[in-house]
Amino acid sequence: MNRTLYDLTAADGTRFSPYCWRVKLALAHKNLAYETIPWHFTEKEALAASGQGKVPVLLDGANIVSDSQIIADYLERTYPNEASLFGEPPARALSMFVKQWAEMSLHPALAQVVVADIHRRLHPKDQEYFRLTREAMLGRRLEEFDATRHLALERLDLVLRPLRKLLTDQAFLAGEAPNWADHIVFGALQWGRLMSSTPLFQPGDALLGWMERVLGTYGLEGATPAA
Amino acid sequence: MNRTLYDLTAADGTRFSPYCWRVKLALAHKNLAYETIPWHFTEKEALAASGQGKVPVLLDGANIVSDSQIIADYLERTYPNEASLFGEPPARALSMFVKQWAEMSLHPALAQVVVADIHRRLHPKDQEYFRLTREAMLGRRLEEFDATRHLALERLDLVLRPLRKLLTDQAFLAGEAPNWADHIVFGALQWGRLMSSTPLFQPGDALLGWMERVLGTYGLEGATPAA
Repeated sequence: MNRTLYDLTAADGTRFSPYCWRVKLALAHKNLAYETIPWHFTEKEALAASGQGKVPVLLDGANIVSDSQIIADYLERTYPNEASLFGEPPARALSMFVKQWAEMSLHPALAQVVVADIHRRLHPKDQEYFRLTREAMLGRRLEEFDATRHLALERLDLVLRPLRKLLTDQAFLAGEAPNWADHIVFGALQWGRLMSSTPLFQPGDALLGWMERVLGTYGLEGATPAA
Repeated sequence: MNRTLYDLTAADGTRFSPYCWRVKLALAHKNLAYETIPWHFTEKEALAASGQGKVPVLLDGANIVSDSQIIADYLERTYPNEASLFGEPPARALSMFVKQWAEMSLHPALAQVVVADIHRRLHPKDQEYFRLTREAMLGRRLEEFDATRHLALERLDLVLRPLRKLLTDQAFLAGEAPNWADHIVFGALQWGRLMSSTPLFQPGDALLGWMERVLGTYGLEGATPAA
């Protein structure tokens, strides 16, 4: 069966969407082969069949599925004989707390650090769209972010403290092996480390070790830069 | 079997320790009857048999157990036929993320709001101990907190956003029924609402509804004020 993921790309080919990374790890978790199509923010017409204009969009045979959470639920339902993305119902419910924390605490803190970097690395055809939508979202001009980067990094470290402690105590958010909760948080930190012009992590950081363990679980070592 | 919990108290009898609340809910979850002994911060000698000086301390027959997490693990191991506090291993692992988030993000944000209120409501014999330890912990004089309460409330709201969203979408952190993850977060918010001199929640707040559902699950409605 053909399986294709539309995957957000920067001008240099870097695939940086946190939501696409979630899906790439979920597909690996379920041992499902796929190809990616690099996609730019302004290529809305390419996604028309999905009925909306954002990635990830997964073409799975005749099925077209968008939104990372809906894709994860689709994969769990469609491929029940592969490893579960969620575990038992209480684990799935708790992974929804991780999702809300990632999207409402971690993503905003990361965005303050990387939004100007991302703008610089986009294809020129995407830059105006990105500027307009992100300045509206964040309430500031992109040019203001570079000057406050050191404060943004301090705030990010504060948001990351519980995660850093957790991943010093245990191998993965989900315990002995990663699951959807790990995929969600990995997507966020991968977005950050791929796009930040300054390092987000010091060598030896528990978060780096965890990211390598996640990639290693799925045989993806070396697929991305180490920091 | 005799079962007794040493439970931190304010001068007026309010039992406000977030860690003791965790254990009271865990005991209710396992359907285990117990009595409490009100305990003051400076009554270190009363806990001597536990080998340390903080509550919660649980006397369970001949066993003496301290530290809320160690108590939860003890209860799970000792009473395996009662409802599980954790669920399957991935759920337990994810509840450890909730624990780290509660202790490293939520507790510090709540402390900024309530630490001066708590000091005012302690028995006089506890006040100097509390001042010394908390001022060292927080790096500020207790008198400085009242002036910055409005900022502390704004920061608290920001920390609570993911939780508020989650509990609009689902009944409990652990899904359809509360477990240890709910007990941990309930303890934090119960500590806050019992001790804050200004309301932490607006009527209709999803967090209030959740707190009532947690209490209702264990037949504890009306045991504490509504806000």
